[in-house]
Amino acid sequence: MKVFKSFIFSIKLMRYVAKIEVSLKSGHGNPEGETAAHLLKELGYQVEKVDVSKAYTVTLNACSSAEAKVTAEEMSKRLLANPTKDNYTINVVEQ
Amino acid sequence: MKVFKSFIFSIKLMRYVAKIEVSLKSGHGNPEGETAAHLLKELGYQVEKVDVSKAYTVTLNACSSAEAKVTAEEMSKRLLANPTKDNYTINVVEQ
Repeated sequence: MKVFKSFIFSIKLMRYVAKIEVSLKSGHGNPEGETAAHLLKELGYQVEKVDVSKAYTVTLNACSSAEAKVTAEEMSKRLLANPTKDNYTINVVEQ
Repeated sequence: MKVFKSFIFSIKLMRYVAKIEVSLKSGHGNPEGETAAHLLKELGYQVEKVDVSKAYTVTLNACSSAEAKVTAEEMSKRLLANPTKDNYTINVVEQ
């Protein structure tokens, strides 16, 4: 009878929070920011401009901070940002 | 003949950038974040949850960093956030 031995490798996954901020590249129209700036001026504030961006706070599991950052980079390219029109920044912290 | 002296007070305004991040208070539904989390899982990522918030980057003039922060606080309460359903955080940097 053959004896099979099973080897169990335990990989410890940690929890990370990746903050991915997606904003329009400069040169693209920013109607929401312009509207906000206009309204703030009407309310009496000395505003020069307003830029609006979207921030995704993604809680994910990864082996290391570096891996979490690479994963967040991939997520941004594949789903959260459109590389044609958007810029994005990523900050990863361990939770 | 009466002589009028004019005193000119020059107040130096500086340029500040206030980053105001507006997110839903916990307990409120977050359909956009849930959709993003669902899609990221379908793409094979080990995601626990996704929160989505809006970030306003406001370029404004003020006499000091403290004044800029008070102004940004007011802007948030009056226009950018809804205190009933939103939380907001403010970070001010001199430009």
